[in-house]
Amino acid sequence: MTNKTALVISAHSADFVWRCGGAIALHAAKGYEVTVVCLSFGERGESAKLWKTPGMTLDKVKAERRREAENAAKALDVHDIQFFDLGDYPLEMDREAKFRLVDVMRKVQPAFILSHSQYDPYNPDHMYVQQWTLECRAVAQAWGHNPGEKILGAPQVYMFEPHQTEQMKWRPDVLLDITPVWDKKWAAIQCMEGQEHLWTYYKNVAENRANQFMRNSGGQAGGRPAKYAEGFQSVFPRTVDEL
Amino acid sequence: MTNKTALVISAHSADFVWRCGGAIALHAAKGYEVTVVCLSFGERGESAKLWKTPGMTLDKVKAERRREAENAAKALDVHDIQFFDLGDYPLEMDREAKFRLVDVMRKVQPAFILSHSQYDPYNPDHMYVQQWTLECRAVAQAWGHNPGEKILGAPQVYMFEPHQTEQMKWRPDVLLDITPVWDKKWAAIQCMEGQEHLWTYYKNVAENRANQFMRNSGGQAGGRPAKYAEGFQSVFPRTVDEL
Amino acid sequence: MTNKTALVISAHSADFVWRCGGAIALHAAKGYEVTVVCLSFGERGESAKLWKTPGMTLDKVKAERRREAENAAKALDVHDIQFFDLGDYPLEMDREAKFRLVDVMRKVQPAFILSHSQYDPYNPDHMYVQQWTLECRAVAQAWGHNPGEKILGAPQVYMFEPHQTEQMKWRPDVLLDITPVWDKKWAAIQCMEGQEHLWTYYKNVAENRANQFMRNSGGQAGGRPAKYAEGFQSVFPRTVDEL
Amino acid sequence: MTNKTALVISAHSADFVWRCGGAIALHAAKGYEVTVVCLSFGERGESAKLWKTPGMTLDKVKAERRREAENAAKALDVHDIQFFDLGDYPLEMDREAKFRLVDVMRKVQPAFILSHSQYDPYNPDHMYVQQWTLECRAVAQAWGHNPGEKILGAPQVYMFEPHQTEQMKWRPDVLLDITPVWDKKWAAIQCMEGQEHLWTYYKNVAENRANQFMRNSGGQAGGRPAKYAEGFQSVFPRTVDEL
Amino acid sequence: MTNKTALVISAHSADFVWRCGGAIALHAAKGYEVTVVCLSFGERGESAKLWKTPGMTLDKVKAERRREAENAAKALDVHDIQFFDLGDYPLEMDREAKFRLVDVMRKVQPAFILSHSQYDPYNPDHMYVQQWTLECRAVAQAWGHNPGEKILGAPQVYMFEPHQTEQMKWRPDVLLDITPVWDKKWAAIQCMEGQEHLWTYYKNVAENRANQFMRNSGGQAGGRPAKYAEGFQSVFPRTVDEL
Amino acid sequence: MTNKTALVISAHSADFVWRCGGAIALHAAKGYEVTVVCLSFGERGESAKLWKTPGMTLDKVKAERRREAENAAKALDVHDIQFFDLGDYPLEMDREAKFRLVDVMRKVQPAFILSHSQYDPYNPDHMYVQQWTLECRAVAQAWGHNPGEKILGAPQVYMFEPHQTEQMKWRPDVLLDITPVWDKKWAAIQCMEGQEHLWTYYKNVAENRANQFMRNSGGQAGGRPAKYAEGFQSVFPRTVDEL
Repeated sequence: MTNKTALVISAHSADFVWRCGGAIALHAAKGYEVTVVCLSFGERGESAKLWKTPGMTLDKVKAERRREAENAAKALDVHDIQFFDLGDYPLEMDREAKFRLVDVMRKVQPAFILSHSQYDPYNPDHMYVQQWTLECRAVAQAWGHNPGEKILGAPQVYMFEPHQTEQMKWRPDVLLDITPVWDKKWAAIQCMEGQEHLWTYYKNVAENRANQFMRNSGGQAGGRPAKYAEGFQSVFPRTVDEL
Repeated sequence: MTNKTALVISAHSADFVWRCGGAIALHAAKGYEVTVVCLSFGERGESAKLWKTPGMTLDKVKAERRREAENAAKALDVHDIQFFDLGDYPLEMDREAKFRLVDVMRKVQPAFILSHSQYDPYNPDHMYVQQWTLECRAVAQAWGHNPGEKILGAPQVYMFEPHQTEQMKWRPDVLLDITPVWDKKWAAIQCMEGQEHLWTYYKNVAENRANQFMRNSGGQAGGRPAKYAEGFQSVFPRTVDEL
Repeated sequence: MTNKTALVISAHSADFVWRCGGAIALHAAKGYEVTVVCLSFGERGESAKLWKTPGMTLDKVKAERRREAENAAKALDVHDIQFFDLGDYPLEMDREAKFRLVDVMRKVQPAFILSHSQYDPYNPDHMYVQQWTLECRAVAQAWGHNPGEKILGAPQVYMFEPHQTEQMKWRPDVLLDITPVWDKKWAAIQCMEGQEHLWTYYKNVAENRANQFMRNSGGQAGGRPAKYAEGFQSVFPRTVDEL
Repeated sequence: MTNKTALVISAHSADFVWRCGGAIALHAAKGYEVTVVCLSFGERGESAKLWKTPGMTLDKVKAERRREAENAAKALDVHDIQFFDLGDYPLEMDREAKFRLVDVMRKVQPAFILSHSQYDPYNPDHMYVQQWTLECRAVAQAWGHNPGEKILGAPQVYMFEPHQTEQMKWRPDVLLDITPVWDKKWAAIQCMEGQEHLWTYYKNVAENRANQFMRNSGGQAGGRPAKYAEGFQSVFPRTVDEL
Repeated sequence: MTNKTALVISAHSADFVWRCGGAIALHAAKGYEVTVVCLSFGERGESAKLWKTPGMTLDKVKAERRREAENAAKALDVHDIQFFDLGDYPLEMDREAKFRLVDVMRKVQPAFILSHSQYDPYNPDHMYVQQWTLECRAVAQAWGHNPGEKILGAPQVYMFEPHQTEQMKWRPDVLLDITPVWDKKWAAIQCMEGQEHLWTYYKNVAENRANQFMRNSGGQAGGRPAKYAEGFQSVFPRTVDEL
Repeated sequence: MTNKTALVISAHSADFVWRCGGAIALHAAKGYEVTVVCLSFGERGESAKLWKTPGMTLDKVKAERRREAENAAKALDVHDIQFFDLGDYPLEMDREAKFRLVDVMRKVQPAFILSHSQYDPYNPDHMYVQQWTLECRAVAQAWGHNPGEKILGAPQVYMFEPHQTEQMKWRPDVLLDITPVWDKKWAAIQCMEGQEHLWTYYKNVAENRANQFMRNSGGQAGGRPAKYAEGFQSVFPRTVDEL
């Protein structure tokens, strides 16, 4: 494949940073063009700090959140970031919005897709995005949708790490060493000025996933000394030539 | 790694053929030395046809089952096959037998282990072997067990395909293309003279797993034309540098 | 907290009686102001007896169901009962209806919310209400929704007992002793004139949950002699200072 | 019951063939009138081969798919086949379409319903149909829906076999011997000219389910020699007079 | 089959009464010879009331429990009741005891087996019995175990209703109408003099399972008016000729 | 209750520190007498660093591990620490050892028990301890075990946090604020000289559980500012007088 690509589908404009910023920067470094779609800005539900500012308006919040996300995308070497501006809490996706996402999928032809976990009682926006991702993937594979376009193959969908993983019934089956790009992820995290209470949280997560990386790559008998890692759960079985 | 190795732990002497014969032959062809441990011959519970022969004795059944398994191992290019002869239905593994398996694990130092699924109401022997495999893996990793020996790293444990998969709560997360070695697997299957009723069953399984391989490797948009495949379920997360 | 409050979200107008009438009366007795929202009257799907009456109309059924629910609410010392009249079988909740429920959540500021279980193949109305409850809870927590209003905290959501619990994958993790208010619950149950076939059923449930209360509070070694109890399943972890 | 009837709800126009063609033909042979509802033709998402033909249009695809389905229905002795033509990928069902299905349920008064599995990440159309089936069943049971009509009883809903069963969390609890009607099913399968890559797949499935039928009906000690079978998962408990 | 038979495996000597007394009496009335195996008397862990009597000894408790069980068996028309006297809390089953149970299985050749649920954190004795039942069933099917004996077929194993069903992850998939024999079950229950606190509990259970029986056999549209029922969960798929 | 007590059951001698050191110190500060039982020293499987020292022997490792555990216990204000010295990897518990644990349970009469999670493929010792804890709890409740002794009531069993929680299917339903005693836990952690690679890991865990504590106790609308917390999963439902 000459052009390696990946696609990230983020419910709110900061999710891609906490949950897969390392995967983005790492694959960018490997030559992947990574596209990020932010379905909303998280303007209503994930911008508490901004709303506490006097005189705040929805437009100002959205502009600020966009600015933060663009900065983070830059820090992570994102190839393209798109804002669908669908609104949040609740985030809703009608047929038109879904077909817009289908268009992106077909255009990007990603080797893999990163998106949210399947369950989230704290934040149903997240879990609906997982469901819509699968719906759009199926449409993008349909020969009868916009006949003549190049259809989508069968890219793996990785569910990135949610907040409070155990409550989401999420279980990582892949651990990715992001040590080489940790500085980029840390810089991107710091772009999220409005959610400072999450910075250390996701630094801790990265360190502990690295501990698990070592445990699973050999443990006391030569586990690789990763310092930062990210976990992902695959939706589909993978197809291989060697175990 | 100069010596690539793998270890198969088979409750009864035919399990390794139906469930991972393709993986064995494929990895042998790639230069792996594959060791197979048969904990029992399946002499009491999986030799109905032999027991229907007049004058049959336990020793004769075991000898016949051993012969079949050795022939199959040869057909699959198994590096080493060991018979623990622990008895079956029920298969029991005391501390001594477990430590014998630990010794094999340490000696082989497998890149990965293949064994049974976690649940099996039809055949508890199978599910106990999965549990013992994990127990022995933990002991083999313990620095205080036979101090001075080279301890085991953290090899993946793949659960191979059980009979009636859905009843076993087994879900494959890896599909392996075994087309290049199908002839070997088919030859090994035919060595199992006493269980002819399973030959076509596992041929059908291999064909259908290949259909799934195509579906998951690109589907109508370029899925790879595998003709025979095997499925496996991983116990542990895998550690990677690229998704 | 000077004003203690709780909120019950009931798909049909009788659900709050069978499923948490005891919890309502008990907390009312403890000084809680309990608000009940009935999203529908159950007029189409849970009023078989009324529909068997000649000359029955939808409006008459709704009026009768409303009367029964108001009587039951009175018997249980409900502080406020609201009827959203959204229709049932299927019960549907559009954005406007959801925001109306968000308004109630914010106004009531409940210490906890009681609602339906997560799964119900017999009655999808029930399971959608659980989902919408979580959606509305998230919106009610969003600083950007009607900025300036007091947002909702993080009240526990308890799923009350469905019919045929095991089919609903419901598992109670809290047993509440309702012995002191059983008379009120029994009176409320009897207000449900159209569903007499459920009276004894839920009396049996209350007695058996009490048996379980005793078993779990000390058993043969001093379990508390509750005579009537209700079970609930928590959606979220609880936060404590002592185990 | 003088008229024995059954109802099949098929997301796309070929699903009823692969997944329960045997059950249809078998029950037809036993005197059941089997009605099949095809919610869509699978014209966009399951007609790849047709779309590869130059000059293809949506109408042509639908016509062709209809023709294939009608032929298959004939081969299976279907009593009545109805095409709702709701579109696919995504298949959507509004209130009106649901009530149309409710009408069919009430008119057919099926002894049992056959439909899709509960989960399908490859093809969300399938899983939504399962959900809608349960919704419509509940409405069809409601005395207040079109009062005066004969309401639906409580027919079992069997989920028929999905593709890649283990990925769908589907587990058959019923195995049906379709040996006597296999020829009809095989003929119906061959009517699906556009999906030839599935013919052998579902033949293999039928053979392997028969192997399981034998295993579960007596095994080596007299299991019945079925040659073709189908598996189903029940949604509801069954009510019996004898175990 | 000329002789219809069934086998009940009861951890403690009262379990068969509460959990499947109705099924026993009903099948006895249908001509089944029902054998009950009590693995222990429940003498240590389920005889609190007796132990509160001054001067009580283990032998006296066992004698009393045996008397109660024999009386109950008589009330239920049990064909044969056997006491293995293996001890309880913990109940342990060595190889010899398992083979004794295998002998019973082969001798009885049951059409179905009734035993405990798969999980029970309150009472691990119960869940081990489920596991041992499956182990012994597999041995009883093995041609190489006591060659020459008639081997066991593939009888269904029904898990009967545990205490606090939801905590046991038990879900009934069969509801059995025991109305015709309720008097016998109620008489048997009253034989359990030492556990009077459970009498009403299991009467309530029987009434509520009957309510569910009606709900699932037609509901408001003609559900059968069962007054007492029992629920069971099948371990294996059933094999049928008609859905 | 005049004497408040709690019991911790730890597979290896360090588990109680990482997994519930905060709960221990916190309850000690509240007047609880906390007893810790270490079933083994983790001498074979959790002492890699020691075994890398030249001239090491099993006895030296055990002595060193005991010293570390005693120091940690002191730091946490443990009332009593007992070492059963049963060996590890594999940790085995025969009838005698179980009854010894039963004796402790009866003597301590704990208000609650803390122990391991239900599943652990990395370390089966852990999951067997959970199972044995439930077995011993049941025996300790049995009136017929050592008649005359005060039997155990029905203490809650909390499963403390395992390593790699998601792999263990563990889900915390209680979050405990341990901020007031963090210094003690941190001191105890530092007593575990041989496992320095886990120090930061469990500090990160404590910080992140505190973030979750805030999220679940009010979130952006007044969540309590905990700085360190621990999570636990309850085995049994709790019995309450108020939700």
